[in-house]
Amino acid sequence: MDITQQTIQQMDHAHRATLINSLPGYKCLQLVGTTGINGHSNLGLFNSVVHLGASPALLGMVFRPKSADHDTLSNIERTGFYTFNNVTGSFLEQAHQTSARYPSGFSEFVECGLTEFFIAGFDAPFVAESTIRIALTLKEILPIKINGTTLVIGEISYISMNDALIATDGYIDHGKAGTITTTGLDSYFEAQHIARLSYAKPGLPLKRF
Amino acid sequence: MDITQQTIQQMDHAHRATLINSLPGYKCLQLVGTTGINGHSNLGLFNSVVHLGASPALLGMVFRPKSADHDTLSNIERTGFYTFNNVTGSFLEQAHQTSARYPSGFSEFVECGLTEFFIAGFDAPFVAESTIRIALTLKEILPIKINGTTLVIGEISYISMNDALIATDGYIDHGKAGTITTTGLDSYFEAQHIARLSYAKPGLPLKRF
Repeated sequence: MDITQQTIQQMDHAHRATLINSLPGYKCLQLVGTTGINGHSNLGLFNSVVHLGASPALLGMVFRPKSADHDTLSNIERTGFYTFNNVTGSFLEQAHQTSARYPSGFSEFVECGLTEFFIAGFDAPFVAESTIRIALTLKEILPIKINGTTLVIGEISYISMNDALIATDGYIDHGKAGTITTTGLDSYFEAQHIARLSYAKPGLPLKRF
Repeated sequence: MDITQQTIQQMDHAHRATLINSLPGYKCLQLVGTTGINGHSNLGLFNSVVHLGASPALLGMVFRPKSADHDTLSNIERTGFYTFNNVTGSFLEQAHQTSARYPSGFSEFVECGLTEFFIAGFDAPFVAESTIRIALTLKEILPIKINGTTLVIGEISYISMNDALIATDGYIDHGKAGTITTTGLDSYFEAQHIARLSYAKPGLPLKRF
């Protein structure tokens, strides 16, 4: 099937959203924890995280315009703190349920049956059920004018996970961590490791490790 | 294990790069096709693609500063055209091998054993071995000043895939497509579908489909 730009533009809204969201493939799934205006905890499910750099250690995250994302975004703008928490198969449904639009003042932790915890000096909740938890401090908010989205850039200020998940070279094993991945708006996948491949050089055969 | 910002900053370069690149989880893996300055085909492996919006249909892609990425970025800047091609397990090693630094003028298609093809009026090569192929036209280049990276924004102008991969609602089945995913700089995973979950509403049980 060949789909042209004109066909895409003429699709109905829901069909196009489902197609385009599922088109590029697997995405990084994170529960994002923030603190709301009255001090209550907020948790939202996002799939728009992108690596920006290792030194300084920066992660980007795209927010949609005028949407339910706005609690999370306004909390990050106000407090400067947020957390990324991976999702495993054992609490997938609770994680997905956080995308429901609860009235302001409700905590998704309570409504969806997830457990929050805090560390001293960091004003955003972590998810106890997650196996890899990242604390971020806001560095920059970049408006993407072409479609009204926003790129939020944060620096990694703290990582919490089990020792057994990190190899001696720093590699984090998301297979062991049970991290799941997503495509589109509602589809979830487990991942099975194929291999790590050696650094590629012209004319040199690759090694699997 | 708790890793603080100070620990991250004091790590040696390779250890930090491996840790931070593998930290957030699964990423969208794409072979990016462009046309070089002398008309030869260029192909590079990237894991920094992010969905920006469905209407217009926009995908973002982050480029590192001063790196081997630059051929791809300068080709996109010059021609305004590029392609995203998914990677399946059957040609993983050829895809990974495209990250080797071939001398200017060499085509990764030839060097790595992949097959290029073109469509009329679009000046960038597609990968025949891929099962989902996307043509993009450059819309905007956004400098991310905090670390010298670049967000390249393109509009989807054409999609090529087998009919059997698209559900009636527009959902693209990356399980059927054989698409693989990646973590870190060198680690690859197959994905196995768990479920699609119904739209979440407060107080309503989720359905799997």
